[in-house]
Amino acid sequence: MMSLASQLYPINRSLTGQGVRTSLEVLQKIVPEIEIFETPSGTAVFDWKIPREWNVVEAYVEDLSTNTRVIDFQKSNLHLVGYSVPVDIIIERDELEDHLHSIPELPNAIPYVTSYYKEAWGFCLSHNEREALSKGPFRVVIRSSLTNGHMTSAELVIPGELQEEILISTYICHPSMANNEISGPTIWIYLAKLLKSRRNKFTYRFYIGPETIGALNYIYMRREVLSSIMCGWVVTCIGDKGPYSYLCSRNGDTLADRIGIAVIRSIENGNNSRIYSFLDRGSDERQFCAPGVDLPVGSFMRSKYGTYKEYHTSLDDLSLFSESSLSDSLNMLLLAIETVEMNCFPKALTIGEPFMSKYGLRSTLSTRDSHLQVKNLMNALAYMDGSYDLIDVADKTGLSISEVIDSFRLLQGAGIVRGCDEAEV
Amino acid sequence: MMSLASQLYPINRSLTGQGVRTSLEVLQKIVPEIEIFETPSGTAVFDWKIPREWNVVEAYVEDLSTNTRVIDFQKSNLHLVGYSVPVDIIIERDELEDHLHSIPELPNAIPYVTSYYKEAWGFCLSHNEREALSKGPFRVVIRSSLTNGHMTSAELVIPGELQEEILISTYICHPSMANNEISGPTIWIYLAKLLKSRRNKFTYRFYIGPETIGALNYIYMRREVLSSIMCGWVVTCIGDKGPYSYLCSRNGDTLADRIGIAVIRSIENGNNSRIYSFLDRGSDERQFCAPGVDLPVGSFMRSKYGTYKEYHTSLDDLSLFSESSLSDSLNMLLLAIETVEMNCFPKALTIGEPFMSKYGLRSTLSTRDSHLQVKNLMNALAYMDGSYDLIDVADKTGLSISEVIDSFRLLQGAGIVRGCDEAEV
Amino acid sequence: MMSLASQLYPINRSLTGQGVRTSLEVLQKIVPEIEIFETPSGTAVFDWKIPREWNVVEAYVEDLSTNTRVIDFQKSNLHLVGYSVPVDIIIERDELEDHLHSIPELPNAIPYVTSYYKEAWGFCLSHNEREALSKGPFRVVIRSSLTNGHMTSAELVIPGELQEEILISTYICHPSMANNEISGPTIWIYLAKLLKSRRNKFTYRFYIGPETIGALNYIYMRREVLSSIMCGWVVTCIGDKGPYSYLCSRNGDTLADRIGIAVIRSIENGNNSRIYSFLDRGSDERQFCAPGVDLPVGSFMRSKYGTYKEYHTSLDDLSLFSESSLSDSLNMLLLAIETVEMNCFPKALTIGEPFMSKYGLRSTLSTRDSHLQVKNLMNALAYMDGSYDLIDVADKTGLSISEVIDSFRLLQGAGIVRGCDEAEV
Repeated sequence: MMSLASQLYPINRSLTGQGVRTSLEVLQKIVPEIEIFETPSGTAVFDWKIPREWNVVEAYVEDLSTNTRVIDFQKSNLHLVGYSVPVDIIIERDELEDHLHSIPELPNAIPYVTSYYKEAWGFCLSHNEREALSKGPFRVVIRSSLTNGHMTSAELVIPGELQEEILISTYICHPSMANNEISGPTIWIYLAKLLKSRRNKFTYRFYIGPETIGALNYIYMRREVLSSIMCGWVVTCIGDKGPYSYLCSRNGDTLADRIGIAVIRSIENGNNSRIYSFLDRGSDERQFCAPGVDLPVGSFMRSKYGTYKEYHTSLDDLSLFSESSLSDSLNMLLLAIETVEMNCFPKALTIGEPFMSKYGLRSTLSTRDSHLQVKNLMNALAYMDGSYDLIDVADKTGLSISEVIDSFRLLQGAGIVRGCDEAEV
Repeated sequence: MMSLASQLYPINRSLTGQGVRTSLEVLQKIVPEIEIFETPSGTAVFDWKIPREWNVVEAYVEDLSTNTRVIDFQKSNLHLVGYSVPVDIIIERDELEDHLHSIPELPNAIPYVTSYYKEAWGFCLSHNEREALSKGPFRVVIRSSLTNGHMTSAELVIPGELQEEILISTYICHPSMANNEISGPTIWIYLAKLLKSRRNKFTYRFYIGPETIGALNYIYMRREVLSSIMCGWVVTCIGDKGPYSYLCSRNGDTLADRIGIAVIRSIENGNNSRIYSFLDRGSDERQFCAPGVDLPVGSFMRSKYGTYKEYHTSLDDLSLFSESSLSDSLNMLLLAIETVEMNCFPKALTIGEPFMSKYGLRSTLSTRDSHLQVKNLMNALAYMDGSYDLIDVADKTGLSISEVIDSFRLLQGAGIVRGCDEAEV
Repeated sequence: MMSLASQLYPINRSLTGQGVRTSLEVLQKIVPEIEIFETPSGTAVFDWKIPREWNVVEAYVEDLSTNTRVIDFQKSNLHLVGYSVPVDIIIERDELEDHLHSIPELPNAIPYVTSYYKEAWGFCLSHNEREALSKGPFRVVIRSSLTNGHMTSAELVIPGELQEEILISTYICHPSMANNEISGPTIWIYLAKLLKSRRNKFTYRFYIGPETIGALNYIYMRREVLSSIMCGWVVTCIGDKGPYSYLCSRNGDTLADRIGIAVIRSIENGNNSRIYSFLDRGSDERQFCAPGVDLPVGSFMRSKYGTYKEYHTSLDDLSLFSESSLSDSLNMLLLAIETVEMNCFPKALTIGEPFMSKYGLRSTLSTRDSHLQVKNLMNALAYMDGSYDLIDVADKTGLSISEVIDSFRLLQGAGIVRGCDEAEV
């Protein structure tokens, strides 16, 4: 996954344009079956319109007093404010200042700034670089185009035994940033690859596109099928070593949320975890859960956007990742998938406590790790009465969802419980 | 309001008698439409009877050793125990002591004592005055009358667009005390004056009478119409600078309570506030919420009866008030009225988040105070799905009810939401 | 009760065998009406089988180097591992060690060990005794028999005015231990004696037998009648001076639990009490609440099994009891019985607050102890509207269930409330 992340990292991306297309093609090399689709600029999508396509040939600021390029898009695509209009002018330092963005508190960081819906231009640079600028004059060149083109997205549907769908969503529209960009698509495509390679109970719908407008467009296009998804998760900011994080859907108690919270509490006994309310939202769950849409969609993350100091700057680079942080995050999602696939209303077949020795479960257990003791097994069993699902059993017993799934498998294997699809009253 | 309070303060009042009549006539000068009505002594009211009318001509204790009046009702009407029977006797200090009331811990305060339902007489005085009494003998004179007469109350109904009623209740039966007496009627009559001068959605029923027996009598008289009130509030102890306080109805979750709690939490961000349980009750909500009555009636206060040291003594005087403490309290009630009038189940008309720039709400907002940010607006909108009312939206978002009402007005004005009278499921 | 406890204490007991029979005959001397019944070894009971009957003639370890008995079952029946098979061998210290049990942390305590469902033999001794053993050789003699016989249990049904049943259950299968054995049967039989001697509203079903397999057998035998019990309580570890304790049924909110919790909170104002979750279970509520059985049965205790240092050792002896600790525990159960017998949905007959002086309740009250003030009475009355039962009223008012029962009796006596069997909506 580190290798994929390294390929995606340097590509210049924005809401639209060649960068997104190139990035999706890189992903397609991992899972060729993803379908890339284009939506024309100007297409009406609910209250919004698909923006014009933005592409950049070059962009720089040249100090005419020294004839050197003091800011250059070629060095970092963060230097250019997203959606900057074309410009080629000579100006003094004073006027240039109105178009510069830097962060005094992080003097080495280039900030990430866009102006999607208001025509403007600007450059971002580290505060140290800004302080070192001369009095000018400066030549400012932005060879960008804002033309009617397309917005690019992609999807993949992996059919399961059942038609009921789980949505896995991520986004791609930020330039060179690692945790808040590349992590999502990287984990997303490897999850798709894994699910494609095996039989699943449910159908999985994978979607990727630019943030906000892409999600709105996808909801608009696939509204009929999305309206009946069982649950879904946005995958973002999920590559670093920060706490395992889940942000609830608007409802807060959907299947997505019940699983999300159970998974977060299960990993490392919940000692390195965060549960966020929908009030703290900031990514595509905003659209998936908006009034009139209201889908059961939460968000899995490690360090949430806005909570780490490198956020939305050039400091959010690949050094925040490791192969193991990426695979830990993928495992978090796999546990969510396992939970949704395994979930059922288990029902004990014995009356009274079972005579455990008969099933060899006592000895089986005494050689397993200490987290799956007979007591835990009996506690899980106590609530397997056909009216609680596996997540309820975890809540009732204080066991982690992993432990409950393991207990269910053991008890089901021994013929002590069976799984029911519906609650029995 | 200070001027009205000063007029009401010195009048001698009790459950019945001329003092209440005079006080109600003073209020009638502010709002001439209030109707004063009389209920005869002996009238049966549920488990109770309207008491005889009590009037006092004079009452004093004269020290015969010095021929000076050492206690005199003319100096303070608190000196006489309420409902004292007539007496004219000469007694020694020892016997007098059995009829005296003072508070050693507050040696300058004259306590407030009554004996409504047991025939008795007595005098109240400061502990310092009591200690200074001679050995006597003393002549005790109480020229009071306890006769079949009437109990006096008043009401005012202000019709609104709808017949559904809101009850605003207060009481008048204590002699010269400020917070625990005059504050209620003062705020009550000015609230009536304000509501009379404008169009209201709901009908407002204002009631005033002596505490307990007056409320029982009014419930008895108006039982049919009261049984369908939407909500109501008792207004008492509401003139001082103490914390904004709400005491819940018996049910604890009526519309009155939901609004009461939302209002209390909204003022000064809830930093100077108290929410009391019905178990702490002590005024006419006792009757309005009693079994067999059970109306949705809570109580708005500042420093609650029994919680401030001047309570039920001569120290509870007008120095506890200021014009601004009175108008702050009136504003608390006006926010409750605004909430009940505005309350509805707002429903977003957009699908997905609206494109806010289109509505000018971003710029509108950026120039407003920092408490009404875009984020708050979007959070409020997120829960405007037709199933939550404004109070629910405040609970869901952590916004104050004022902020939610402001957000609703902005969003409704922009055509982004509409208000529904009933929840949509 | 101390005398009964002393009789029961020394008898050697196990799941089956003469010890249980003798113990039940001792109880029968207190209440002759209890019916002792036998279930044959090998009888199938749900997932289990009634075990063979175990009896012991003698058991000892003799040090052949000194010709002295160093461990002897005659001195304490805890010395022999329960269900030890017969043996008569001469072995070295090393081999003996594999069959010895002691507790290094409690060097004076003989631990209690059984091997019910795996054929084995062993001896328990204090760690000090173990350390003092020589190198041997040792002769080990166990003259025990494991034969097809019977398991012994007993029951008593005390008919009430109504057929609805309350189950009172305890168990008898441990050898010489006091709190975790003798306390349960002792309290249980005296409770039966008391209930037999008076008229009761409900029918009381008393059951006693060996732990786990006895309860399963009783459930199997009486399944039809048990399936409709109103509530039930296991009585165990209930003789010492530890905190008044209640362990909830699986459901956690059955009538048994509501009463159990109310009673625990009522005694000593809940200052010396513990409420345990079903997850902490360990006695016959495991079977009564198991899937497929799921009865409303909790457990009353003082120091719960596993929570006191003497638990399951020879230190759990009669010195932990006193006559007053036993009678305090009996009173806890009597309060539970009083609550179930008195429980109803009280409904006020007055409209508005009653005129209390009329009923003499004010003066009545002022002479009673300070726990039953007018305020408490009025608070209790406030929630007596026909929709709350006495336990709800305690929850709503913060009064103890004892205070609520007393208040109900006073108010009912005065004609202010009546009790309804069903909630009025």
